Amino acid sequence: MRLTRYTDYALRVLIYLGSHPDKLSTISEIAAYHNISRNHLMKVVHQLGSWGYIDTLRGKGGGIRLAHPASEIIIGDVVRHTEENLEIVECFTPGNSDCMILPGCRLKGVLNEALDSFLATLDLYTLADFL
Amino acid sequence: MRLTRYTDYALRVLIYLGSHPDKLSTISEIAAYHNISRNHLMKVVHQLGSWGYIDTLRGKGGGIRLAHPASEIIIGDVVRHTEENLEIVECFTPGNSDCMILPGCRLKGVLNEALDSFLATLDLYTLADFL
Repeated sequence: MRLTRYTDYALRVLIYLGSHPDKLSTISEIAAYHNISRNHLMKVVHQLGSWGYIDTLRGKGGGIRLAHPASEIIIGDVVRHTEENLEIVECFTPGNSDCMILPGCRLKGVLNEALDSFLATLDLYTLADFL
Repeated sequence: MRLTRYTDYALRVLIYLGSHPDKLSTISEIAAYHNISRNHLMKVVHQLGSWGYIDTLRGKGGGIRLAHPASEIIIGDVVRHTEENLEIVECFTPGNSDCMILPGCRLKGVLNEALDSFLATLDLYTLADFL
């Protein structure tokens, strides 16, 4: 079981920004710090912006920063956003399963319950806990 | 976030065997029922045997069956076995991370806590709940 690289990068960006609260940061700077492809980070940063986690100030001297105090950014919420695909097994993807037992399968409900427990634990923490 | 296909297949095999308690089943039969490659299932069945979940009776008229009553097979335990790689993010794999924040990272502990919640929920169920 694994979270996507996308989630990994999103959390690293947020932790970086939370650790530098008094300045504007740049994607290049974060990419260099983490030795991550700038192109990968561009997409992550764009999405984090569209979800309201970070503000982008354009132009010379511009950059990115957290849109809210770190203590208000709940880790479970971030992971719900970044893990678009929370279909924990194949049969969770509509129309993409040939599982014979699907119609009467109780496993799906139980795996969803386990996933809820996973996210509920992450809801106990905010970004501030990781700075 | 996703479980491996390996876990998916292991659960399907156990559910199949649990649903046919009064006979010996064959890998070919399960492969045909689920439209899964027989080769994939061979490995899964071998491992389920080595972990003590199923018995194999060799020879003519042989086959496989559950080694214990379905009510004694705990789903959380099965998933702990099949998900060898419970490294939920890259940095959990020793020597395989270049994450700059790893030395002081609290995220690792929290993700492990969330994973424990996930598995603890699965521990509430046995195979018998899915038959």
